[in-house]
Amino acid sequence: MKVGNVSYRSVWRDGDTVAIIDQTRLPYEFRIIALHSRDEAADAIRSMQVRGAPLIGAVAAYGVALALRSNAGDGALAAAVDVLKATRPTAVNLRWALDRMAGHLKPLPADERVDAAWAEAQRIADEDIELNRSIGVHGLELIRAAASESGSVNVLTHCNAGWLATVDYGTALAPIYLAHDEGIRIHVWVDETRPRSQGFLTAWELSAHGVAHTVIADNAGGHLMQRGKVDLVIVGADRVTRNGDVCNKIGTYLKALAARQNAVPFYAAVPSPTIDWKINDALAEIPIEERSADEIRFIHGLDEAGEPARVAVGTANMPVANPGFDVTPAGLVSGIITEAGVLPATRDGLAVLEPEAV
Amino acid sequence: MKVGNVSYRSVWRDGDTVAIIDQTRLPYEFRIIALHSRDEAADAIRSMQVRGAPLIGAVAAYGVALALRSNAGDGALAAAVDVLKATRPTAVNLRWALDRMAGHLKPLPADERVDAAWAEAQRIADEDIELNRSIGVHGLELIRAAASESGSVNVLTHCNAGWLATVDYGTALAPIYLAHDEGIRIHVWVDETRPRSQGFLTAWELSAHGVAHTVIADNAGGHLMQRGKVDLVIVGADRVTRNGDVCNKIGTYLKALAARQNAVPFYAAVPSPTIDWKINDALAEIPIEERSADEIRFIHGLDEAGEPARVAVGTANMPVANPGFDVTPAGLVSGIITEAGVLPATRDGLAVLEPEAV
Repeated sequence: MKVGNVSYRSVWRDGDTVAIIDQTRLPYEFRIIALHSRDEAADAIRSMQVRGAPLIGAVAAYGVALALRSNAGDGALAAAVDVLKATRPTAVNLRWALDRMAGHLKPLPADERVDAAWAEAQRIADEDIELNRSIGVHGLELIRAAASESGSVNVLTHCNAGWLATVDYGTALAPIYLAHDEGIRIHVWVDETRPRSQGFLTAWELSAHGVAHTVIADNAGGHLMQRGKVDLVIVGADRVTRNGDVCNKIGTYLKALAARQNAVPFYAAVPSPTIDWKINDALAEIPIEERSADEIRFIHGLDEAGEPARVAVGTANMPVANPGFDVTPAGLVSGIITEAGVLPATRDGLAVLEPEAV
Repeated sequence: MKVGNVSYRSVWRDGDTVAIIDQTRLPYEFRIIALHSRDEAADAIRSMQVRGAPLIGAVAAYGVALALRSNAGDGALAAAVDVLKATRPTAVNLRWALDRMAGHLKPLPADERVDAAWAEAQRIADEDIELNRSIGVHGLELIRAAASESGSVNVLTHCNAGWLATVDYGTALAPIYLAHDEGIRIHVWVDETRPRSQGFLTAWELSAHGVAHTVIADNAGGHLMQRGKVDLVIVGADRVTRNGDVCNKIGTYLKALAARQNAVPFYAAVPSPTIDWKINDALAEIPIEERSADEIRFIHGLDEAGEPARVAVGTANMPVANPGFDVTPAGLVSGIITEAGVLPATRDGLAVLEPEAV
């Protein structure tokens, strides 16, 4: 999508390096950095310089290409897959992309693997964009229907599931961008999304694209739904189970409860690789990543001089718990917006997307 | 309650001034400041140097005494009540305390009003403490019952309804302090409570008193309830309607929804002056205070040198909405913990507290 007058993806090959946008600097600074090695790619994922399930998968795929440049043997390939898989335990796209890279590259002779890895990573990136555009087209129907009733639409979203979280276009935001582009009067309520405040990334994206939006504290969404100020909730997801449970950024579940209570439709927008066909019951089967206490204890922003800085909040040594994700049970989900259409959040509803091999 | 080895109230008369604890400095600095005039008292309330419904009422009452020192005539009394009432539109205790002061002082000759104002403000403060202790005694029964099942109790609370929010003891925290003091193994999940992060005040209080606690992002409470890690939710309230609707800090409603969904009892702890007998339906009748966008845009803490500082978060001129409170409908409330016992959140249940004059 556009930043100023230039179109960007969130990851791309640049010669023998991989270029990414350092998302830890956003929304304050738009900074492109180059990854030169497997370990730099792993660090970028681990430190959340890149975040969002589809983008993590694409960066990991490019990371395999980086890894093989110096050694394209079987051991190096296996090690690259292992190291990159270990960076974020909850992200199913990461595993999916790495398994695909391994499956594609293993049968090839070592001297063909580097070129093949670049090409396959590029295909993963291109396919992600096509998936997201298709998600946008299907989600757009929901927004059009809501707009036809009132002439305008208020969508609430949580975290960042925009183009910064994918290779381009976004998942939850793809329908919003398409709706805006066709002239629908759309306004987005953007949850701040503590502790890491990815809502500010969403606000930055929407602002750059000219979409009307308002940032709110995570506490405010229920109140807005109760007062009829939200027509639709659309979120992304880190993982959707074959039964339609949605594992997404912590706090999603609370918004889904409020949506149900106030008869506001609640959708998760995900490409099919985000569906984990091996998992039925998210509550029982998905381990929730416990993240660093420092995410609660320190808040990053700009100081009075406009320089990046952080402040410590709360008392010193304040005890903190910081679960990164939660589970929204399928029963609270109005539908899953996928590249194949808006599907019911049920085993039967999602089955059209299930790979035959599973 | 204790800070170090010294017992404090959150407001008290000090000669011809009123002493308060500057809560905008907590949890980083324990600083007592003196109020010398009506306008300083109004500023302290408006700027949230004092916050919490019962404390606001007491400070406003003392503010009337300050106002009358220079001029105890009818005009000055009426002006003091008007100015102080206008500081926080949602706070019913504020109106209650000021109406009580006016009713008590108006019939008196002007030369008796100053002493009478000090005395009446003192009575309001003393009565608040007695109310809170009674709330603690009744709420303790709920905690004892929960502890008798599992040997320990996990309570979730939102915002700060501790002794800092009252004259002493607190409302939601009063039962917790009593439970801790009688040796019950109690642990408190403390919501950060963005945008103003009053949860850090709660953590500071609990830490000072030795109560086990863990601070969480506002997004995390639903997840914890879903996983069985919360036995009880206890919050304070800015206002409770005669039908049992609870108007409290923004985000309370989301926690009440999660509590209901996961069969976790949800209680509001309030003294009877917090019940607004003139209001039945909070959603229809209570205006919600829209607070400054800067509360979202700036976060206060300590910089790397340990000095108070703030950082700007999000993009410049980021559009923000910041409703200060929300409404938890009575149907989601398991009971109201009052000085007269734990009452059903219904018109009939609360009626035992209703003043005859209404």
